[in-house]
Amino acid sequence: MSDSEQAARERALVEEVVASFAGAESERLRELLGALTRHLHEFVRETRLTEEEWAAAIGFLTRCGHITDGKRQEFILLSDVLGVSMQMIAVNNEAVGDATEATVVGPFFVEGSPEVPIGGDLAGGAAGEPCWVEGTVRDVHGEPVAGARIEIWEADEDGFYDVQYADDRVAARAHLFSDSAGRYSFWAVRPTPYPIPDDGPVGDLLKATGRSPMRASHLHFMVSADGLHTLVTHIFVRGCDYLARDSVFGVKESLVKDFEEQEPGSPGPDGRAIDGPWSRTRFDIVLAPAR
Amino acid sequence: MSDSEQAARERALVEEVVASFAGAESERLRELLGALTRHLHEFVRETRLTEEEWAAAIGFLTRCGHITDGKRQEFILLSDVLGVSMQMIAVNNEAVGDATEATVVGPFFVEGSPEVPIGGDLAGGAAGEPCWVEGTVRDVHGEPVAGARIEIWEADEDGFYDVQYADDRVAARAHLFSDSAGRYSFWAVRPTPYPIPDDGPVGDLLKATGRSPMRASHLHFMVSADGLHTLVTHIFVRGCDYLARDSVFGVKESLVKDFEEQEPGSPGPDGRAIDGPWSRTRFDIVLAPAR
Repeated sequence: MSDSEQAARERALVEEVVASFAGAESERLRELLGALTRHLHEFVRETRLTEEEWAAAIGFLTRCGHITDGKRQEFILLSDVLGVSMQMIAVNNEAVGDATEATVVGPFFVEGSPEVPIGGDLAGGAAGEPCWVEGTVRDVHGEPVAGARIEIWEADEDGFYDVQYADDRVAARAHLFSDSAGRYSFWAVRPTPYPIPDDGPVGDLLKATGRSPMRASHLHFMVSADGLHTLVTHIFVRGCDYLARDSVFGVKESLVKDFEEQEPGSPGPDGRAIDGPWSRTRFDIVLAPAR
Repeated sequence: MSDSEQAARERALVEEVVASFAGAESERLRELLGALTRHLHEFVRETRLTEEEWAAAIGFLTRCGHITDGKRQEFILLSDVLGVSMQMIAVNNEAVGDATEATVVGPFFVEGSPEVPIGGDLAGGAAGEPCWVEGTVRDVHGEPVAGARIEIWEADEDGFYDVQYADDRVAARAHLFSDSAGRYSFWAVRPTPYPIPDDGPVGDLLKATGRSPMRASHLHFMVSADGLHTLVTHIFVRGCDYLARDSVFGVKESLVKDFEEQEPGSPGPDGRAIDGPWSRTRFDIVLAPAR
């Protein structure tokens, strides 16, 4: 059989599969399955995927499924380390004017965080160096956004989120609302780098490709307000070793901030007495219009 | 931001992820992950995949993982209904001369089947109408292949393989060896259509797209001999309702055979007395050279 006959057979199979979805009631589902089928088949054809490699892929997905439970989501990790999550964020957050850039949500956001007042402390006992964060929330016309809901969550200095603790403690997770001038501020702990969970198949993939599981130090934000597009993002610590090799490709230059080290023992901006080192940073947020 | 700036950002992310695999020791792994990354990202970019759709995909894969166990393999079913398994078979079995075409192995092959003599009965108590199968094994030069190992497995008339029975019975599964002239023959049960397991996420996908879970009636073969390429294939029953809409895209015209109904109560080709209807078919097998 000639090469072109083989290619024709392979292409005919792709079209047969795509056509099998013609009966889907949802036009969007038909579109998604058609595109997925074309790309998966093209992957197999381009790489001439062997039976052993196919079987290894089935085994890999099976391991991902079996390690996934209420507290561990290996498929999200897989999407993250392949940059698929970040690409999905990119296509859903096309830039509008100078609106703040978005990044991955990650697997550690939890609904129902406690509220803290402006200037409050969200550490809740999480270990780490105190860090003062302040800024404003504005729209793309520069108008202050009053009453914007600002959710913040982060890992402690050992790299653990509260949901990873053995008990049910809530820590390093809270929300607050911007004031009438769009201003906000709070105490948190200074972010430090930590590894994504790497004792499963995704960790094995990183090892096999010589990649680090570390995430660059960051503080998560989710900011929402009526009539504006909800922003899910992080701020990163300038100077962190992992900015250029964040394991989930989440870093954007516009989100890297100076976390300025302050004189140890000097009082905080709110007069708080601090017994040791602390730092401060600023994050001015611009929300795009709702779509 | 202009469309082209957005597109440039999206493309830059693809290249960043591909570059992250540069440290893989295995060149083939690097190639596979690069191609996978490009196709997954292109899928997200083309379809402008939403966050809700991405989350639904994560949930779908999670359900596939949780229903998969030692007896159920939802990821293989998924690969099958997307035609990916069949495409993988196609690229690994490029036709050589008139070598018999391959098709999917499916999830029901088990190592260590019992041996039966030529002309033996592999039903082993499986319910179904008796069916005589005979043929030859040859190479692409037309030379008979003596001592070829022929593995056969099939579902019973209720659509169940023995591994789906509640007990550990072995039935409708055996192997035999071709004789010095390459000939073989055996008694089996006439294949009937059956659904792939459709009470999980893959079944939901089929329902949402109006597709049938049914497989066209078939008998599985795996044929191996020294110096020749192992053939994994089926034969299908001409006239079966599902030939044109087999749920896993396994049907090839060259594999559709006449299963001729015989006079009920007439003796079998080997003189066996049969109390009711029976049928017979012929499958002449041509093995490609080993690669």
